[in-house]
Amino acid sequence: MTERTSIALDAMGGDNAPAEIIAGAVDAVEKQPALKVFLVGRQEAVEKELIKYRYDKSQIEIVGASEIIETAEPPVNAIRKKKDSSMVVGMKMVKDGKADAFVSAGSSGAILVGGQVIVGRIKGVERPPLAPLIPTAKGVTLLIDCGANVDARPSHLVQFAKMGSIYMENVLGIPNPRVGIVNIGAEEDKGNALVKETFPLLKEQEGINFIGSVEARNIPYGQADVVVCEAFAGNVILKLYEGVGAVLVSKIKEGMMSTLRSKIGALLAKPALKETLKAFDASEYGGAPLLGLNGLVVKTHGSSKAKEICNTLLQCVTFKQQKINEKIKESIQTGEKPAGNN
Amino acid sequence: MTERTSIALDAMGGDNAPAEIIAGAVDAVEKQPALKVFLVGRQEAVEKELIKYRYDKSQIEIVGASEIIETAEPPVNAIRKKKDSSMVVGMKMVKDGKADAFVSAGSSGAILVGGQVIVGRIKGVERPPLAPLIPTAKGVTLLIDCGANVDARPSHLVQFAKMGSIYMENVLGIPNPRVGIVNIGAEEDKGNALVKETFPLLKEQEGINFIGSVEARNIPYGQADVVVCEAFAGNVILKLYEGVGAVLVSKIKEGMMSTLRSKIGALLAKPALKETLKAFDASEYGGAPLLGLNGLVVKTHGSSKAKEICNTLLQCVTFKQQKINEKIKESIQTGEKPAGNN
Repeated sequence: MTERTSIALDAMGGDNAPAEIIAGAVDAVEKQPALKVFLVGRQEAVEKELIKYRYDKSQIEIVGASEIIETAEPPVNAIRKKKDSSMVVGMKMVKDGKADAFVSAGSSGAILVGGQVIVGRIKGVERPPLAPLIPTAKGVTLLIDCGANVDARPSHLVQFAKMGSIYMENVLGIPNPRVGIVNIGAEEDKGNALVKETFPLLKEQEGINFIGSVEARNIPYGQADVVVCEAFAGNVILKLYEGVGAVLVSKIKEGMMSTLRSKIGALLAKPALKETLKAFDASEYGGAPLLGLNGLVVKTHGSSKAKEICNTLLQCVTFKQQKINEKIKESIQTGEKPAGNN
Repeated sequence: MTERTSIALDAMGGDNAPAEIIAGAVDAVEKQPALKVFLVGRQEAVEKELIKYRYDKSQIEIVGASEIIETAEPPVNAIRKKKDSSMVVGMKMVKDGKADAFVSAGSSGAILVGGQVIVGRIKGVERPPLAPLIPTAKGVTLLIDCGANVDARPSHLVQFAKMGSIYMENVLGIPNPRVGIVNIGAEEDKGNALVKETFPLLKEQEGINFIGSVEARNIPYGQADVVVCEAFAGNVILKLYEGVGAVLVSKIKEGMMSTLRSKIGALLAKPALKETLKAFDASEYGGAPLLGLNGLVVKTHGSSKAKEICNTLLQCVTFKQQKINEKIKESIQTGEKPAGNN
């Protein structure tokens, strides 16, 4: 018998809460019998949505939480003061072992703070990275770290490489994932101080398939499966990816609507185009895990709809079943003392 | 009478040299009577191309240079050893006052090194930034710095803001250009150590229209006219811009070729689409100036064709006529001693 994965899902987080969040939960439990979802949020609001669906009652349970953390709130304060918010209550469930994972489409800042403060880091993990999947010409790449902790040290980046590698191999099923470091040139002597210091450490690291520097231009081509960087660069990459994609697609739409001839062309090409652009849409691939915590915390897009929530919940099941955290523990903790054997 | 602008043009640099370079020069002198171009390169190769065109003989002159600096060569060595290369000869002409500007589609590294070592910095300029124009939904934005000198200091970024502002106002004709700093959030307290230190300096800087932080997502929307960052981030932004654009466009083409219906649609939409995508093509806007030097040095894309070369040469004329370097000198040198009056 498969072990059950139980997930505390923030029913109040994101632009489309609670309706899309709950719809995603219902979809997920239907697809995955080994899944139990705790919908954390305002009892009444959640009940009102949930009543619309038929589902296995043993798989979904409501956990009341009266407060909501808004996106604009200063995260540290919000986590400290709103003890009965869906985020704090949900993360406490992970901390207390009542849930394996916490999933939220709410405030990134609050999720990052709560993950560290409430759920806590795995012993030996210096910094938990936020690691979204970004679409590429070949599939997806894990961009690690896009979190809030900037000005990272080389040792952090080495841990990111290890954790990202474990995630891609076991959750996404990519054997021996290629790990690259974001750089401004392909040569080893290129880069800023951080990259130059980190490069040789990654090169000598056992257990990862380090392929060297990856220039930003080659990220969208899928040159590496795991792209390591500090959070400032990671954030710039993630946001620019979204921005350039959105502007380019809107420019193309504009172009297609500019003449009668092109309008007819657009009508004919639309279904095929839609399919291709979907493959380049990050939300298809579920949320971004905050790795290295005592439990799993996943941030999904603020604009998440049912499909992304469902995909994220199913990813959490894989995460649990593949024992990712046990693997991270082993990798980090043995990696901590590489000199011990020499 | 207008003063003449004379430009040393590297006839041997870039993927399409010398043919496209020379074609661009011929176009430019035809459009701009106040322009004189020195084609610097191998006499015979240049003559062979030049003979194909009719042009005002007083506007184009060949300057012999027997060597070529290849893209793969280590820049410092190349500049030091290849004294008779088109790059070194061309930059010396600027240094010696024989040309106002040097333009090349060759090795970025060599251009950056040569600019500093041969042409030299304006007194007071701490670091000359490379500032390409990137396309946005609204037009273009100056991304400053994308050069080779990473790990910048706050004072460098303040100078970049001033120089970029002068360039956009006077060369591109944008009144009171909006200056933003690349950041990972909109608030003043967000960012890494560099950004946090630079932000208040920019805020109190007179003579620039500082609008605060710009998240990477908003760069393609044209939120700022001048986007200030250190070179590592700048390089990542520039390269990712190209990469995401190229992959997305190829995905769209692929999508349009996937069914018979979409193929017909593509045929009909193609002319209109081409027009829109052209507006999002950086090469339309000419090269990237290396600002803050005693003369102008401009790097154009390695893949430059005649049109980009021509546009770049015309930009150099505006640069000279608008007395950009005099304005930079004034801004930097008075800015150097803001405390003197207090």
